[in-house]
Amino acid sequence: MANEKLFANIISHAKEYGYIFQSSEIYDGLSAVYDYGQYGSQLKKNIRDFWWKSMTQLHDNIVGIDAAIFMHPTTWKASGHVDNFSDPMIDNKDSKKRYRVDHLIEGFAETLPAAENAALIAKMEQLLAADDFAGIKQLIEDNKIKCSVSGTANWTDVRQFNLMFSTEFGAVSSDNPDDNIVYLRPETAQGIFVNFLNVQKTGRMKIPFGIAQTGKAFRNEIVARQFIFRMREFEQMEMQFFVRPGTELDWYAKWKETRLQWHKDLGLPAEKLRFHDHVKLAHYANAAVDIEFDFPFGWKELEGIHSRTDYDLRRHQEFSKKKMQYFDNDLNAEGKPYGNYIPYVVETSVGLDRLFLTVLSNAYHEEEVPTAEEGKTDVRTVLRLPAKIAPIKLAVFPLTKKDGLPELAEDIIKDCRPHFACFYEEKDAIGKRYRRQDAIGTPFCVTVDHQTKEDGTVTIRNRDTLVQERIPASAVKQFIINSIA
Amino acid sequence: MANEKLFANIISHAKEYGYIFQSSEIYDGLSAVYDYGQYGSQLKKNIRDFWWKSMTQLHDNIVGIDAAIFMHPTTWKASGHVDNFSDPMIDNKDSKKRYRVDHLIEGFAETLPAAENAALIAKMEQLLAADDFAGIKQLIEDNKIKCSVSGTANWTDVRQFNLMFSTEFGAVSSDNPDDNIVYLRPETAQGIFVNFLNVQKTGRMKIPFGIAQTGKAFRNEIVARQFIFRMREFEQMEMQFFVRPGTELDWYAKWKETRLQWHKDLGLPAEKLRFHDHVKLAHYANAAVDIEFDFPFGWKELEGIHSRTDYDLRRHQEFSKKKMQYFDNDLNAEGKPYGNYIPYVVETSVGLDRLFLTVLSNAYHEEEVPTAEEGKTDVRTVLRLPAKIAPIKLAVFPLTKKDGLPELAEDIIKDCRPHFACFYEEKDAIGKRYRRQDAIGTPFCVTVDHQTKEDGTVTIRNRDTLVQERIPASAVKQFIINSIA
Repeated sequence: MANEKLFANIISHAKEYGYIFQSSEIYDGLSAVYDYGQYGSQLKKNIRDFWWKSMTQLHDNIVGIDAAIFMHPTTWKASGHVDNFSDPMIDNKDSKKRYRVDHLIEGFAETLPAAENAALIAKMEQLLAADDFAGIKQLIEDNKIKCSVSGTANWTDVRQFNLMFSTEFGAVSSDNPDDNIVYLRPETAQGIFVNFLNVQKTGRMKIPFGIAQTGKAFRNEIVARQFIFRMREFEQMEMQFFVRPGTELDWYAKWKETRLQWHKDLGLPAEKLRFHDHVKLAHYANAAVDIEFDFPFGWKELEGIHSRTDYDLRRHQEFSKKKMQYFDNDLNAEGKPYGNYIPYVVETSVGLDRLFLTVLSNAYHEEEVPTAEEGKTDVRTVLRLPAKIAPIKLAVFPLTKKDGLPELAEDIIKDCRPHFACFYEEKDAIGKRYRRQDAIGTPFCVTVDHQTKEDGTVTIRNRDTLVQERIPASAVKQFIINSIA
Repeated sequence: MANEKLFANIISHAKEYGYIFQSSEIYDGLSAVYDYGQYGSQLKKNIRDFWWKSMTQLHDNIVGIDAAIFMHPTTWKASGHVDNFSDPMIDNKDSKKRYRVDHLIEGFAETLPAAENAALIAKMEQLLAADDFAGIKQLIEDNKIKCSVSGTANWTDVRQFNLMFSTEFGAVSSDNPDDNIVYLRPETAQGIFVNFLNVQKTGRMKIPFGIAQTGKAFRNEIVARQFIFRMREFEQMEMQFFVRPGTELDWYAKWKETRLQWHKDLGLPAEKLRFHDHVKLAHYANAAVDIEFDFPFGWKELEGIHSRTDYDLRRHQEFSKKKMQYFDNDLNAEGKPYGNYIPYVVETSVGLDRLFLTVLSNAYHEEEVPTAEEGKTDVRTVLRLPAKIAPIKLAVFPLTKKDGLPELAEDIIKDCRPHFACFYEEKDAIGKRYRRQDAIGTPFCVTVDHQTKEDGTVTIRNRDTLVQERIPASAVKQFIINSIA
């Protein structure tokens, strides 16, 4: 299947089976914002919990925090976001539609023959690198690039547009409205940096140690792209690992491997994961790599691992006048004449929504399966979600609605429900019920039939192998617990 | 201990032991916003997970969703928040400080003798009920009420101030900036209502059924009060239960009892919980009650249970032109001539931060305990957190740093860590380590000593009873698992 068609099918499947809905869909949606439905919210939570547990509970030197979305505005001056977190934009005067200039030019370039395309992109990149906005506007006009809505080339000047959302706190009626401006955090990392001293001191943390956090971040992306891959509101899972200066590249190498292995442990196949080293480093980094995933729309960034040096802590020290230092007893013990330093930081940062999309894309299959009728096949859509993160672990079906079979099925549910998420359904033919659970990604289905009344056994069906076996009803709970561990 | 002193001690304990830090504290904080530290974030997550599991996994007719904070702005017109979610405010022209007029007048009234106090409050309430803002201003001026910052009575007019935070989406450069305005949701409930049709249809839900959600909400509160009790950014845990019209008061009664029981199951004592019926109902409700908790600063709302009628769904139908209806097969089966209706809604809504504060307040104790020295006592601060939600379940201490004891302690940690959160510490005297875990709220401490090397047993200490018993090191894991179930 062509990737574009496959991706469209995944998106429509995600809606049809309660994984992802467009936000405020009854009001025709809100651009680049999505809601997670009844199965999506649980899958997202399961992925988040898997990350949280692996980062905090399974490491004795990493603790979590949960910092607020609102932070003191000086945070974003120190981090550089107020001055630098922006894209050059241009507005069409007729349609009022706003474009990122690189997207506008790239979109036009795709309509050109390959050589001209490449030349135009090269020219654009040169002008952007030089911050030559007048030149960029000239380039757009020279190429007669038109707005897709108005069809005109009536453009405003190019200007920088900060990607942070701002709002106003109302405690003061200032003549200067800037006094009240607060930003929605564009990344969770700074919530960790500003809490570094508090966590280190109250938690008596010894370097090397990490602080992990999951939470929402917000970016005023002008163009919505690729479903939940790039959203205005999204969730990050970040960990900042504080190390002794000079050891950061060793830790960077270690975290690269640890994080790649984690994605494999989550159930993503090795051949769909790869490293992509950053050639051009951000001003705060001395090494950076992406873990990329082979999405239906190509290889794209899933997680970033960055050696951020002491840039952030140093900037916060400068802006807050608080010493962001660590006293390293071990250095003293090694006979060094001093023990104080600003720690270096290795960051691991993954987008939860993006990870959700990798899991969903990887799980989605349309495949031929045998039917009850000899030699005939049928097409089923199945989400081969790893059992440990599937929203529903077990569906229980009474073969018919009578003869006491629903009661026996309910008994199994009662036995299992405290331990994992179950689903009960008594309507429709068994085959149809199986297909629905395949589409939801439920790894196991149990059917209660008349034999159950005689010998207490049930049929348990494996979503992926389609194998059905009989086991005692009383053994179902432990069977599932073993399968999801 | 006086309640005020007690509350101050709880707040300082919360900071000292990594539960709650003021947001962006290095920048002198952000008013009415707090961050959860290494233990606070885990306690908060444990409470949230306990709610989520009890609402979704343990009910076959309640599913979860996770809707975005950003919603289509028409949502808030339909819900009434754009027009009605506001408080009357007044600004002092000299200090620029803004006050909620009721807070300003109440603060002044407290300085008066009881009779005058009551008369002033009564007058204020009468004017507020009549939306008589000129009268309110006159009342402030007649009483010569002054700003606490400037000391002057130089006031602006009274005006409505909407409590929703707004921000701008940047996709369009409109001449009318309102076209771009998006609000931060002031409640999570509307995310459930706008997704009602999607969840009901894709989940094939049959009435009665519920949709549960946890997530952040935002209100531009002018006055920060009582620590994390009233914050500008907070987290709600809400469930909307959709029922057949006419049955809502039965369900309301059922959910009242269910939710009260849930708080007891969480570990809150019955005598600190009570119902408080709303006398004046909101325009959308036909019954409403608060579950109140006896906080250190008095009885305050912890959770609300509201019978919201079909108000919200009806309003969304009106504004979206989508039929927010349910086709009730059972009604047809009962021979009724029709089966379509807009469901009625019973809501349960609890603030996660508030619940965190109840748990923390209830757990906090300063108490005399015996010391090793005969007849002497010592004061310890202990968080008697229920084991099932405590951030750390088990601390493991080697008695000394040598003789292989740390290795034996590490073996226990390795055995236990995949199952629950553990803590290892080898520094300081055992008594001091116990006290620290008491202050964190860790229910069990295990000490590895020389006898462990001989017979494989360890000492396990109970935080609350202070009883120490010897059990096999290999039995520790199951001991804790049983205790936190």
